[in-house]
Parts: sequence; C-alpha cells; structure tokens
Amino acid sequence: MNKIVLAQINPIAGNIEYNSQIIKENIKKAKEEKADLIIFPELAIMGYPFGDIFMRHKTIINKQIEELNKITHLTKNITAVIGFAEPTEDSEKKPYYNSAAVLQNGKIINIVRKKLLPNYCEFNDYRYFEPAKETSEIFELNGEKFGIIVCEDSFNDKLFFKNECLYQTDPIEELMKHKPSTIINCSCSPTRNGKEYIKNALFSSIAKRYKVNYIYVNQAGYADNLAFDGTSRIYNKKGELTLRAKSFEEDFAIAVDFKGKIENLPKGMDKKQDISVFNLNYKNDLERTYKNLILAIKDYFGKNGFKKAVLGLSGGLDSSVCAVLLADALGKDNVWGISMPSKITSKESKNDAKELASKLGINFLEIPLAEEIDVLKKMLGNTFSQINTEKFEKSTTIENLQARLRATLLWSVSNEHKQMLPIATSDKSELYIGYATINGDMSGGYAPIADVTKTKLFALADFLNKYRKEKNAVPKAILEKPPGAELKINQKTGKTVCAEEENMPYEFLDELIWFVETKGFGYEDFLNHKFYYETKHKLSREQKEEWIKKFFWKSHCAVYKWHILPPSVITDSHSINLAEYRQPIISKVN
Amino acid sequence: MNKIVLAQINPIAGNIEYNSQIIKENIKKAKEEKADLIIFPELAIMGYPFGDIFMRHKTIINKQIEELNKITHLTKNITAVIGFAEPTEDSEKKPYYNSAAVLQNGKIINIVRKKLLPNYCEFNDYRYFEPAKETSEIFELNGEKFGIIVCEDSFNDKLFFKNECLYQTDPIEELMKHKPSTIINCSCSPTRNGKEYIKNALFSSIAKRYKVNYIYVNQAGYADNLAFDGTSRIYNKKGELTLRAKSFEEDFAIAVDFKGKIENLPKGMDKKQDISVFNLNYKNDLERTYKNLILAIKDYFGKNGFKKAVLGLSGGLDSSVCAVLLADALGKDNVWGISMPSKITSKESKNDAKELASKLGINFLEIPLAEEIDVLKKMLGNTFSQINTEKFEKSTTIENLQARLRATLLWSVSNEHKQMLPIATSDKSELYIGYATINGDMSGGYAPIADVTKTKLFALADFLNKYRKEKNAVPKAILEKPPGAELKINQKTGKTVCAEEENMPYEFLDELIWFVETKGFGYEDFLNHKFYYETKHKLSREQKEEWIKKFFWKSHCAVYKWHILPPSVITDSHSINLAEYRQPIISKVN
Repeated sequence: MNKIVLAQINPIAGNIEYNSQIIKENIKKAKEEKADLIIFPELAIMGYPFGDIFMRHKTIINKQIEELNKITHLTKNITAVIGFAEPTEDSEKKPYYNSAAVLQNGKIINIVRKKLLPNYCEFNDYRYFEPAKETSEIFELNGEKFGIIVCEDSFNDKLFFKNECLYQTDPIEELMKHKPSTIINCSCSPTRNGKEYIKNALFSSIAKRYKVNYIYVNQAGYADNLAFDGTSRIYNKKGELTLRAKSFEEDFAIAVDFKGKIENLPKGMDKKQDISVFNLNYKNDLERTYKNLILAIKDYFGKNGFKKAVLGLSGGLDSSVCAVLLADALGKDNVWGISMPSKITSKESKNDAKELASKLGINFLEIPLAEEIDVLKKMLGNTFSQINTEKFEKSTTIENLQARLRATLLWSVSNEHKQMLPIATSDKSELYIGYATINGDMSGGYAPIADVTKTKLFALADFLNKYRKEKNAVPKAILEKPPGAELKINQKTGKTVCAEEENMPYEFLDELIWFVETKGFGYEDFLNHKFYYETKHKLSREQKEEWIKKFFWKSHCAVYKWHILPPSVITDSHSINLAEYRQPIISKVN
Repeated sequence: MNKIVLAQINPIAGNIEYNSQIIKENIKKAKEEKADLIIFPELAIMGYPFGDIFMRHKTIINKQIEELNKITHLTKNITAVIGFAEPTEDSEKKPYYNSAAVLQNGKIINIVRKKLLPNYCEFNDYRYFEPAKETSEIFELNGEKFGIIVCEDSFNDKLFFKNECLYQTDPIEELMKHKPSTIINCSCSPTRNGKEYIKNALFSSIAKRYKVNYIYVNQAGYADNLAFDGTSRIYNKKGELTLRAKSFEEDFAIAVDFKGKIENLPKGMDKKQDISVFNLNYKNDLERTYKNLILAIKDYFGKNGFKKAVLGLSGGLDSSVCAVLLADALGKDNVWGISMPSKITSKESKNDAKELASKLGINFLEIPLAEEIDVLKKMLGNTFSQINTEKFEKSTTIENLQARLRATLLWSVSNEHKQMLPIATSDKSELYIGYATINGDMSGGYAPIADVTKTKLFALADFLNKYRKEKNAVPKAILEKPPGAELKINQKTGKTVCAEEENMPYEFLDELIWFVETKGFGYEDFLNHKFYYETKHKLSREQKEEWIKKFFWKSHCAVYKWHILPPSVITDSHSINLAEYRQPIISKVN
C-alpha cells in the first residue's frame, strides 16, 4: 500500500534556485509524512511558461540539471517523479525533450519523454522539444506498477475524442502494453472555461477502460497571461474520483491507497460548456472566473515584487469590478482608487465611485482635473494653430486627452510609491473594437479584466455582490446605468454619450465576439445569422448590417491595441491575448 | 530555351483579393513578355507573416483556394509556380501543408509540399503546417527538368552546414534522385545582418555541386516586425550568379536561358558577419540597415493606410535619426517635428532640433512646455499630499511626467490629423535596460529604431550624413554630445544628467547586449570576459562588476516594456522583438 503525495507547486520560469527550493521542501515534508512517492508537475524545475528564455540563456539548463542532481540525492527512502527539460545533445533534433525523471535512493532510475507536443493556442512545445519516439518503461513500487505520461500524451484517446484527435498515435495505448496498474500524468495545464469537465471525463474514462489508477498532478499559479488551476486528482480503477486537490492555489495532497481528501470545485467548474448556442447566462462560470482573475492578480504582483495598486475610479462598471478584484487579491489597504472627475463627469458618477471605495474600504482620493484639462487644451490649441488647424476638429482628441491625463496621474502615483502598479481597466468587449485609449484607460502595469466581456462583467459584478462576505460592494446604480466613458456630451440630449450609442449594444457585440472566436464566423455568416439579441429586440436589416460592418472594421483597426496591451490573464475559452492568439497588425481577415 | 520571370511581389497577409490581383497582373505582364515560366514566392496568395489568422478566420483559406483556381485559369501558354496553404483535411495532421503549385494551361499539374518546418525565432511553421513525407516530383518545360523546393527545404545541406544541420533529412538530396536540371526555391525569407552571405554561398554551392541551375524567388516588403529583402536570383550549373533582382523592393526580373540583370547589392550585404569578436565597426552593415529601416517605415505606414508622422525632436541622436528616416521614407512634407522644451532643456538642444528640421526640410514647431509641467506638478503635489507623501521623493516621477506630456501632445496631434502616426523614438540599447518611459518616448504608432543599438545609431547617423543626397542633415553637435534625455539636472554640476552617467557607457552596454544575444553569455561569463571597452579605457574590477550587475537587473525589469513596445522592424542579428524572441515577464534568466 503506497502513500503518495501530489505536490501541486507554483514555480517561476527560469528561477531554478527558487523552484528547486520548493521542490526540496516538498520532498522533506513528504518524507516526514513517510510517503513512498511524491509527484511534481511537468517541467517543475524549469517553471512554465518559459517563453524562449532557454534558447538565449542556455545556462539555465545547466543549472536545472545541477539542481536535478541535488534533488536526486534527497530521495533516500522515497521515490520522486519530476518534470524537467532534458538536453537531446543532437543538433539535428530539437534541443530538449520534455521529460519526467523517476528519482529513487539517490539515483535517476527512469526517464520518460513526452511524445505529443502541442503547438496551438498558448502551447509552443515543438519550438523547444523533440518528440519522443520510444515507448515509456514502467517502474515498480511496493508491488504497484507505475507508468508515466506527460500532459498532452494523455489527450489523444481515440474512443474519447473520436474524430477530433490531433495526433496519430495514442501514448496511453502504447503505455498500456507494459501493463501498468497506475498511470501518472505530470502536467502544466492552463485553465479555461469548460476544460475541467473534459479533463474529468477523459481521465475517468481512461482509468475505467484500462482498469488502472490514474494520478494527475498539475501546476498551480499564474504567469504571463496563463493561469493554472492545479486541481490535481486521482481516479481509481473504476474511474471514480478518489482524491482532488485544491483549485487555483498550491496544495500538498496525500493519498493512501489512492484515496485522499476531495476538495470542492469552484461552482460550475465541473459543468460542460455549451457551445451549441450563444446566450447571456454566465452563472456556471462565475466562481471559476473570479478565482482565475484573483489568482492572476496575486501572482502577477507577487512574482514581480509589487504589493499595491492604483486605479482610476470612474463610477463605471469596469473600474468598479477591477477595484473589487484588486481589494480581494491584494488586500483593501493596498489599493488606491482615485476619482478624477472632469467638468462633464456627472454628480452620480462621482458619488458612485466614492460609495464603491467606501464599501470596499480601499484608499480613496478625488482629484478634479478641470484646470489641468483646460491648460492642456490651450497647449493643443496653440499647437494645432501652428499646423493650420485653427480649432479642434475631432472630439476624440479631447476625449483621449482626458483619458491620457488620468493615466499620467496614475503612473506618476505608481512612480512615486514603492511596489505599486497602475491598473488598465479596459474590458474585452471594448478592446475588441478598440474602444479604449492608448496611454489612457488601456495603459497600466496590469489589465485584470482584458479577457472578460462586458455582459459577463455585469454578471460577475452581480455575483460579487452576492458571493463576497461584504455584500453589495458594487453600488446598484453602477449595475443599472448604461456603460460609457463620460468623455463627451451628446449635443442633442445634453447628456454624456453612452458607449452603446457610439458602438452597438453590448449584447450584440458580445455575440459577434463569441461567434468569431468559437465558430470562426465571417461577415457573410453573420448576415444570415439570427442573433440572440433579435429574439428580444426589434432590429432592422440595415441596422444589423451596419453593426456587423462596424464590428469588423473597428476590430481590424484595434489589432494594434491588442499588441501593446499590458499583461493580463486569459479566462475565456478564446481570447485576443497574444499569448494565445496572434493576429498580425498588417493583415485582413474579412 | 526558357524565358523565366522571378515575380518578387509584396503581398499582405490575409488580403487574398489584393494578393491575387498583383499575382494576376504579374502573370499578365509575363505573358506579354512571352515568358514560359513565372515563379512567385512561398505562400504568395496568403501573404506572410500571417500569425494565427487562418486558425480563427478559416474563410481565408477557402478564398485562397478559390483565387488559386482563378489564377490557374490564367495559365494558358504559361507555367506558373506559386506558394499557397493547402488544406490537409485530416484532423490527425496539422491543418495545412505549406505548398507550391505548378499551374499550366488552366490546370494544377503538380503540388510540392514543404518538408522542413522551421519553428525557431520568427518562424512558427509547425504551428500550422504538416511536414510533407513524400519526395517531390519534377515537371518538364521545353526540355528542362524543374524540381521545386520551399524555403527551409534548401537549408539543410550537410556538406555546407556540417554539424549545424537542424534536421535529419536533406530535401535537396532527395529531390536530386529525380535528376532535375534546375531547382526552383520559393521562399519567404526575412533579412538579417549576415544572412545574404550565407544564402549566396549555400545556393551557389548547391548549384555547383549538383550541376543544376538554381532559381531563388523571395518575397519583398515588410509586415509585423519582419522585413523581406527580395534579392531573388539565379545561379548557373557552375554556381555562378547569373541574375539578381532588386533588394528591399518589388521586382519583376526576367531571365533568358537562366541569365538576366544583376542588380547591385546594398553595400556590405554580401559580407560575412564576423561573430568571433565584438567590435564597433558597423560599416559593412549600414546601407542594408538603412534600406531595411526605410522599407519598414514605408510599408508599415502604407499597408496600414497612414501617410504622415509626427515626432518629438529633442535635439538628441535618437529623434534626429528617426526624423531623417521618416523624411526619406514618407517624404519631408509628411513629417512634423515638434520641439517641446522644458525649463531645463538647453539652448543648444533647441537649436540642434531646429537646425535638423531645417536641414531636412520637414515641418517644424516649437511648443515650450513650461507652464503645463508646472500645472501638472501642482496636480501631482496635491495628489501626493493626500496619500501622505508631502513632496516628490523621486526625480523619476518628474522626469517621466515630462516625457508623458510630450507623448500626449504627439498623440493628440495624430488624433487630430488624418492618416498620421506619432513615433516612438527609443533605441535598442535603452530599451534593453528599460531606459525609456512608458506612455512617453517609448509610446507611438511605430518605433523605427527599436532594434538599433546606440553605437550603431551613431555610425548610422554618420553614414546618413555622407550617403544621402543632402549631406550632413544631422548637425555635427548632435553626433558629438553625450546622449541624454535632458529630464533632470545633476545637482553637483548644474548640468542635465547624461545617460551614460545614469547607466553605463554605451560601448560597454552594447557589448553586453551583443554577447547575450550572440553567445548566450550570463553573469559569470561576463566577469571573466575582457571587454572591447577595456582595451581603450581603464576599468576597475568593481566598476565592471557594478555595470554587469546593473545590466542584468535593469534588463530583468525592462522585459515588461518589451511586451508593450510599438511595432518596429528587426534589423540586427538578434533582437528583443517579440516576433522573434519571447521572454516572459515573470521569469529569471540569471
């Protein structure tokens, strides 16, 4: 009977000393627990995602091998399975294998190499790694036969994926020829909407079909736009879940006879994502989204050595949700919300900003920017008159000026204070169509909600008001008023222009985004498509066409902004984040 | 005897209609010339680089196949070889082959698929393409036997690259089993320092060794950080160059009996790059660099629909070189140089900026920013006093404020004027160590010199002063004074602080960059390294160590800036441009 530790660690790419340290601590703890086996994630000593660092900084690999050897010396009376980048030492091959080593009694007794190398979306395995050809061997421990696979090698099950398999071979099938009684899967698997459902169903079906125990160990934590939910687990030979580690945080989960504690999944995370139709029902995905966003803020700040955040509070939805997330991730005392009203900011917006800050208990300032805007307008007037433009032609210039002055103030505050970052509050819907100001609201050290659409943000705000200990932090007024940047006045109504007036209804926009990302829809497809929006509102053919055209034109012009977007976290199923999807600036897609 | 056209075109990624149009026009022209054969570059109908666009926007591929069929119909009395993305229609394979079709008399008579798929630096072929297994067939035309290969398939010659081959097989060797008398190479090969020398030597040696004519057709133009120099050519069976098309522009080069016009190469482009030692002698690479930078500006503006540029003129080297390049690429009437002196800007700098503009003949304005800075300082003072910082602690805050106000003015000018972009003037040396202000000098629609180091910029300025028709556009004073942002005063000397005082000598910094990029040097390597700088200056062990440490720390902190850098062009051998090299923000490399 084996005692097994699933070491769900949170390493840092290239920080070999740090990663090695936490690995050693985990081994020490496992020994204290008298565990027989401890399992670490894929590429645990290296940390993931590592981008191209070991192509240019090759010393990292040597350090990694040195540390692997040191770790090996610690495996007296325990067996450890650990992922690392193994040099191929053959110029005609890729420089490394993506391998897992089995360490026992001070020796490396086995090395298993990854065969299937994902090279889509956020994955670039084939850029660095040579695909393994040989079948993995197995190792025995207290009568149990363990076979190891690395991440993607478990994701080509032909009975499960049927005609959606991405590769020709199934490494699990090959491994089963050696008749292991337990499969160990070392992974670095980023979280996404609907992914947990697939993993659970897949691993369970493999365990049941092959009558093996199935142990999955995943990295936890966030780095460079990717969040890893951990959620390591074990299935028994009937395919039943017998252990589940924590989600969105590190864990040290102990299994005795393949059984252990089953931690709760964030609500809805086990649900299948419905991609048959678009709808506005996000409820199954809000707790996961929240935990995903919080983990990302914590790790982005923590791993980069920052502790505090400063953001502009407009009294609108985007900055309000950002403020709640920051307060929860960094602690309310570490967040500064600054209201920076101009002459056209409404009293209501000012009050909403203040009320939000007060409910959250974050630091709050109001810095009115009337005089400064006037001085800068004068400066621009003087400039334009010298290049033969007597007066402002475009209201955009003044709108952007306000946004840029606000960002200048936020960056200055962060310059002046230690370990503080300014926050870019742009959301996904607005970034998609470029409704965000360069050097303005889309500028910052981090962009918490850049992958959350507006309609989902409304649902998230509602969820936060109900879910958090302090209820209703986001004032009701913010949830009820139409979103808008309050940067200009509609001359007819005398009111500030709301975003939907300038663009299109968010419900319509978010459906466009969803079909482009999920189904690859183009202009023609949308013309013949019945929008969910149309089931609730009357919509003329002309208006519909105008909005579809506007969407494609605006998103075409927005690609530049996607390229200079601050770091964020991917949380949707698909994104415009360069870590996953790269659209060239000079290109045409419709 | 065949008449052959090398159609060195400049397509746009995903703009199938446009690309198809220029292909059709070239075929029409070739027919008028009574050519037997016309050859287009790799992936000519698709345009390159295309990023991930056809993973999300699959309709592009259908359009491409439709256009290929239309183009095929135009091949009565002519044969065309053309690169395209060919669907594999097999989920267990990558979605496409990177193929070249042979079109003849309205039919596709042959398709050749790329075997070696580069997936390093700027190349991501394996992300989209299935490597071909089968050996290519050949086609006959007027008694000549043509074999086709696609780009990388010609780059694994074991006699040439010896133990530096990246792949196991050599497609040229395989192709030779079919005994072609001529090899056609369809390519999309970005330009780099020293690359032309290798290509020339390689192609010539293949032609000579196998006793074949060798025709190389490359794309011309720029898109998304990559420049393609064209420079298509033919070698005869003795390995002698018998035709060479233009460099850094489109061409329609005609060969009769494998012979045609040999265009000049930009000076030094044929030279081998010396990577045995670092030196400050850039002369062999300046004309290529200049043409590379100019092409990039032209195409970035032109392909995105912009015509004019506005930039801040500080009277320093970076902005001066940018101004010259912009004037040459866009025409002097399309460039606005704005001098924005603060209270601490020296009279000399103001005069130098003015003199430069006048010599170039670009539009010039001087907008002093004294009052505005005071107002913003007051705003910040007011803000800081409310968060318990009574006065400015960090001079950086004020320095950055000036840079950000200047960028705000430039963005406002571009907002207000049609088809105008503001320019980010940061250079590579300064970006490497983060000596550039976010939302300040590193903000803009385009960054012309982000891949040119400071010492090379000095050489380039000197070259421009001699090479351009209007001599000495960059005032001598700019070339002689030490670079500095003129953002703060040294309290001891009363003068503005120069950059080398704050950082380290540029000659030292540029050597650090060179060894990191070229040799993968780490901290330890540099400690034992004798710097070129040391052969000319006395340098204490302590000072040397301090600079090396400072470099690694500052470049570690600068990675965020590399991620939000505006589009630029790669021109050096290696770069920090994300199109080629991706270092995660959360990482450690030393």
